[in-house]
Amino acid sequence: MASPFLGEMLGTMTLIVLGDGVVAGALLKRSKGEAMGWIGITAGWAFAVLAGVFVANATGSPDAHINPAVTIGGAISTGDYAKIAVYLPAQFLGAFLGAVIVWLHYLPHWAETPEQDLKLAVFCTGPAIRSAPANMISEIVGTFFLVFTIAALVTATSGSAGAFPRGVAPYLVAMLVWGIGLSLGGTTGYAINPARDLGPRIAHAVLPIAGKGSSDWGYALIPVAGPVVGAVLAGLFVRMLSL
Amino acid sequence: MASPFLGEMLGTMTLIVLGDGVVAGALLKRSKGEAMGWIGITAGWAFAVLAGVFVANATGSPDAHINPAVTIGGAISTGDYAKIAVYLPAQFLGAFLGAVIVWLHYLPHWAETPEQDLKLAVFCTGPAIRSAPANMISEIVGTFFLVFTIAALVTATSGSAGAFPRGVAPYLVAMLVWGIGLSLGGTTGYAINPARDLGPRIAHAVLPIAGKGSSDWGYALIPVAGPVVGAVLAGLFVRMLSL
Amino acid sequence: MASPFLGEMLGTMTLIVLGDGVVAGALLKRSKGEAMGWIGITAGWAFAVLAGVFVANATGSPDAHINPAVTIGGAISTGDYAKIAVYLPAQFLGAFLGAVIVWLHYLPHWAETPEQDLKLAVFCTGPAIRSAPANMISEIVGTFFLVFTIAALVTATSGSAGAFPRGVAPYLVAMLVWGIGLSLGGTTGYAINPARDLGPRIAHAVLPIAGKGSSDWGYALIPVAGPVVGAVLAGLFVRMLSL
Amino acid sequence: MASPFLGEMLGTMTLIVLGDGVVAGALLKRSKGEAMGWIGITAGWAFAVLAGVFVANATGSPDAHINPAVTIGGAISTGDYAKIAVYLPAQFLGAFLGAVIVWLHYLPHWAETPEQDLKLAVFCTGPAIRSAPANMISEIVGTFFLVFTIAALVTATSGSAGAFPRGVAPYLVAMLVWGIGLSLGGTTGYAINPARDLGPRIAHAVLPIAGKGSSDWGYALIPVAGPVVGAVLAGLFVRMLSL
Repeated sequence: MASPFLGEMLGTMTLIVLGDGVVAGALLKRSKGEAMGWIGITAGWAFAVLAGVFVANATGSPDAHINPAVTIGGAISTGDYAKIAVYLPAQFLGAFLGAVIVWLHYLPHWAETPEQDLKLAVFCTGPAIRSAPANMISEIVGTFFLVFTIAALVTATSGSAGAFPRGVAPYLVAMLVWGIGLSLGGTTGYAINPARDLGPRIAHAVLPIAGKGSSDWGYALIPVAGPVVGAVLAGLFVRMLSL
Repeated sequence: MASPFLGEMLGTMTLIVLGDGVVAGALLKRSKGEAMGWIGITAGWAFAVLAGVFVANATGSPDAHINPAVTIGGAISTGDYAKIAVYLPAQFLGAFLGAVIVWLHYLPHWAETPEQDLKLAVFCTGPAIRSAPANMISEIVGTFFLVFTIAALVTATSGSAGAFPRGVAPYLVAMLVWGIGLSLGGTTGYAINPARDLGPRIAHAVLPIAGKGSSDWGYALIPVAGPVVGAVLAGLFVRMLSL
Repeated sequence: MASPFLGEMLGTMTLIVLGDGVVAGALLKRSKGEAMGWIGITAGWAFAVLAGVFVANATGSPDAHINPAVTIGGAISTGDYAKIAVYLPAQFLGAFLGAVIVWLHYLPHWAETPEQDLKLAVFCTGPAIRSAPANMISEIVGTFFLVFTIAALVTATSGSAGAFPRGVAPYLVAMLVWGIGLSLGGTTGYAINPARDLGPRIAHAVLPIAGKGSSDWGYALIPVAGPVVGAVLAGLFVRMLSL
Repeated sequence: MASPFLGEMLGTMTLIVLGDGVVAGALLKRSKGEAMGWIGITAGWAFAVLAGVFVANATGSPDAHINPAVTIGGAISTGDYAKIAVYLPAQFLGAFLGAVIVWLHYLPHWAETPEQDLKLAVFCTGPAIRSAPANMISEIVGTFFLVFTIAALVTATSGSAGAFPRGVAPYLVAMLVWGIGLSLGGTTGYAINPARDLGPRIAHAVLPIAGKGSSDWGYALIPVAGPVVGAVLAGLFVRMLSL
């Protein structure tokens, strides 16, 4: 059954189960993880990447992008655009499914949490200071460094000498994501992945979440467009450098 | 002397010494680790897995399951049920012994801690919001992703190219467990391991813990049944995917 | 296009984007990472090293020093001073560029943060207790252990048996830097890298940061001179020990 | 110049510079790391082990024990007692020197910290609840699991298949030490190393620390004797199991 579509879908689903899950654990009332803080949230997203990459690898996607920005950046840098049509639908679908599982997992906590903005924050990102141009810049910068440092990691660890053991690369990518979250996430919550934001936002809109508020569609374009622009810039830069 | 029974017993004992130990360090009064928070507790459980797997490996169990859910999930996915009869008794016994050591290690702190619920929480899990169906769902979801992501990790890192160095796999499993704790532990405290919960709960019931209260047997079935159901579902899913 | 100059420049730029970035995330008002504390700041700098080394490696600098102190320490220990003239300008330029990107990334947060000292702290270090001799000692000690432990790591992991896989060394260096930050950073904020401090201090001086104050030039010599002295001492010690 | 004596001395010195250093960073007034909490302190000690092992390895001690308990446990399990006479003096001397460097590094902070117990805590351990038998048990349990899990790690990762890459073992040991600190350190502050406690306690007694109080010699025997007993028990257990 394994296929690139299945791998990207299940990998992104796992990414969101653990990623949106850690935000739920940190923000929803009466969660044992309440007040774990930014170090906990960013650690949780890092391990979510680790788990998602292993699932994607094992179920049919050796690339394990689990992020349209990585797929687009890779397409730009290599000139091979064929994967976009398969990977992106799988990633958005997987992200939606992951958000449904998080809703189910934290089922009794939604009614206990009166703040509608916290409930939305479990699903998708929002700006610390709302400003379309500044928020775009943040998502572009964050995604640029995500795609560029992953490309650098792949380049730096390739080659015949000292062969790179399987399993270590996903861990190092996860640590880079932890770093990007800690360092560049403070402004917009680092979507840096269009599927990670839009898929769960749709889930927020359609699920019967107790006492939910707006899905904030007015902001929804930025965490999609910003990462795409950042990925394109990184892809062009990688191509220019011939990494 | 090494044998699979000894390995699973000593490995699970070590898991609980460090796992229940970190909860004791975080919750018992006058502990130097008081108020280390959810990031500390989940990190402690991750390193407990790391230590437990090395002990199990070294003392006779190359599988190093140290968790009935992992044994059951593996049996379902492979169709080989022979290990269950040996591993499970060893795991429950080891978990009981580990809890006894934690009680001894923190001996003067029990009398200093008036809250009976905190003392019980050192030994076994309890729900953030008590609701049998919701708590079952949480344990099923948590265990499903534990077993599924470990299976994905093993699949993704197997094969001849870039041989996987010994010692790295247990570390990656520990990091997955850190992630599951951070992301999915907020609801029920992530038993995700029937031995981890029932063995220490029995220890709580029989040990002369200063000022102890109820062992909350009314909840005891859920952290056993939930992980078993989650493991069976994950085993079936892994089998369906032919991982 | 790859060259040692480009590698050191882009690697140091990435170091500062994530390094100064995590300080911005922790200190600037309305950042989602506010109050992440010392563990978050030191973790962020560690992952900044990880990312910077991969970028430097991939874009032309196999050495990936991204720190004049490491370049100087290496020159002293090996007797080969040729790299200094190429690496140091690249490192200072990269650090300046990285600070510009951090300013841009956190654009709306500067006006929201009235404290001028916090805004300066994003860019460069300052002493916890101002005392030129004590602050010099701290920077010397911190940099000595940075350069000495990296040299020990390289020595300890070289050789034919158990070849060292690519990608692991940068991670271990990052963990050493996390440790040095946690343990020795409390006094002066651990510049331990002249480019890391002076490049962003110049950026602070020239950028139109909303409501900025002094760039504290009275302190600027110590985080340059201290690391140089510490690196020279470590280089001499490494040479004496023939590591 | 490299020799086992030098290696153990410099390795233990480095261990204490970063280990006592992180306690200083967490406890001394006006340190930037004040209030980093138990997660920060235990992380700092873990990275101190990582750095100390690399230094010991690189400067002449392939064993890199940097802890008399590990040397004694190894002697018991192998029956080879020859190393004790060389390693132990080096470890105690190194620990003393490391404490001197920490005093120097945090020089202006001693006078700023009125609490004499906090200043002593930078150098050596003290019990959360003073009780000689309970404190002995805690040090025995902590050291037993330190020595036993390290022996298990070495056994589990040896052998021809999937050769263990250099550099990874010290990292895994460091993570085990992080876990032991988080889980078992809450009672006595986990000396689990006689040199780590006695060497710096002597430094506390002889250094001209501003406003220092008692060196608490009444407790000094327990963090020496407890780890020795724990190491002997672990050594006998390892021998019995033929690890």
